[in-house]
Amino acid sequence: MSTRNLADEDLTNAVLASFAGAGSERFKTIAESLVRHLHAFATEVQLTEEEWFAGIDFLTRTGHITDDKRQEFVLLSDVLGLSMLVVGMNNRRPPKATESTVFGPFFVEHSPAFENGDNIAEDFSGEPCFVSGRVVGVEGEPVAGARVEIWQADDAGFYDVQNGEEPNGRGHLFTDEEGRFSFWSVKPEAYPIPADGPVGELLDAGGRGPMRPAHIHFMVTAEGYQRLITHVFVEGDEYLDSDAVFGVRSALIAPFVRDGDHWTASYDLVLAR
Amino acid sequence: MSTRNLADEDLTNAVLASFAGAGSERFKTIAESLVRHLHAFATEVQLTEEEWFAGIDFLTRTGHITDDKRQEFVLLSDVLGLSMLVVGMNNRRPPKATESTVFGPFFVEHSPAFENGDNIAEDFSGEPCFVSGRVVGVEGEPVAGARVEIWQADDAGFYDVQNGEEPNGRGHLFTDEEGRFSFWSVKPEAYPIPADGPVGELLDAGGRGPMRPAHIHFMVTAEGYQRLITHVFVEGDEYLDSDAVFGVRSALIAPFVRDGDHWTASYDLVLAR
Repeated sequence: MSTRNLADEDLTNAVLASFAGAGSERFKTIAESLVRHLHAFATEVQLTEEEWFAGIDFLTRTGHITDDKRQEFVLLSDVLGLSMLVVGMNNRRPPKATESTVFGPFFVEHSPAFENGDNIAEDFSGEPCFVSGRVVGVEGEPVAGARVEIWQADDAGFYDVQNGEEPNGRGHLFTDEEGRFSFWSVKPEAYPIPADGPVGELLDAGGRGPMRPAHIHFMVTAEGYQRLITHVFVEGDEYLDSDAVFGVRSALIAPFVRDGDHWTASYDLVLAR
Repeated sequence: MSTRNLADEDLTNAVLASFAGAGSERFKTIAESLVRHLHAFATEVQLTEEEWFAGIDFLTRTGHITDDKRQEFVLLSDVLGLSMLVVGMNNRRPPKATESTVFGPFFVEHSPAFENGDNIAEDFSGEPCFVSGRVVGVEGEPVAGARVEIWQADDAGFYDVQNGEEPNGRGHLFTDEEGRFSFWSVKPEAYPIPADGPVGELLDAGGRGPMRPAHIHFMVTAEGYQRLITHVFVEGDEYLDSDAVFGVRSALIAPFVRDGDHWTASYDLVLAR
């Protein structure tokens, strides 16, 4: 198929045809669907050249603000609901298993190792909070030796990496023989996602707020079980029904209870095989 | 509309609803169409989490390789046919007017100023070529004082900016009272678009070639006329029907004629009001 003198549908068909020789059928399927939807979007809105330039500029700035500590493309995917859509499609779990939610842009590889009962948030601003629970399977069996990764923001809504600090409010530990885990941290608070970059502009232009309800991130991996990436949300948070990234599930909400000079929260993480 | 407990269509509807308060109706239209097509794409191909991560990584690397001399997002738009689609939709011109084609990633602001007859490609590798023509309106009237921007690659297919060199094969000049322009340069040759970055990976995975047929870029601006962004292609080039960016129009092809120790080409650029 010649690439010459193409307009509109013929152009779309020529681009689709250009992937005929793709080495992988899966790649071909994805590329073709992407091209069809990209062209349909531009045609539907009759995208102007000025808007196209603005889009190129937006993506360029999104790339330039992204580094090993800040992932603006993940944030973009989050606020467009793409992340939660992909999470949902890929994590159809048995009813008893803990639901997944967005990974978010603040996970960091090689977090510090802790023992159960340790404080993962030394020098982190916030009210002390003791978090405990069990990792179990859907039949209730304890999962011993599961790796539990935890990450969260301080009470001002900042993750350690946003301040360029040493790791804080972040770590991993392993469940004991009965599947139990526990750690001290600070009580999480609702916070705005980073709004000083391109994604913040998008939210502003869309008349949208940047707030996320208070939560702690968990990622649990254990031999023989599906990896679980989720949050535990704080009961009563005012943003549970207006999460900027569409990530709240009712079953992921836990009571955080004041107990003298600190808070306690308990939540069991249920893995699917 | 609550953002809680959303799956699939409900999720898409909640993201669409989140833009209800957009300040601009046009922004709302674009954001909604983008979200609908983005979600429809991910759903249609049942995008996996691994593929989503690969997409985030692809965009991140595309952003990181982009700087003030290399625009990988423009290149991506070009090879996906989006650029040519937008060019086509926004440049419906009268039949006699010169057609537009892709802007490409190698335009640079503030090019050197030249007089008619100057050599814009001193120290550029290639066979000498004298290019001339007129800028006229669709009624044939000469357009005096039109600004003609020219940029092209050397005979190895490299633009000045790709080699980090001083400006070369690039400049602007103004038409004389009869709308005439002329300059010396080198004869352009077919070349591969930069294939050492993410876009190159995409072409490889798609089983696609990176070649563009030989061409000279022109951008013409003149008071009272629509800006024209186009190429003049070299007649007989072997890639005229397999341009990696789908940019060839038959009417933009000109004969390049050998004349002793150099080449000559002549092409009139016809502006729409």
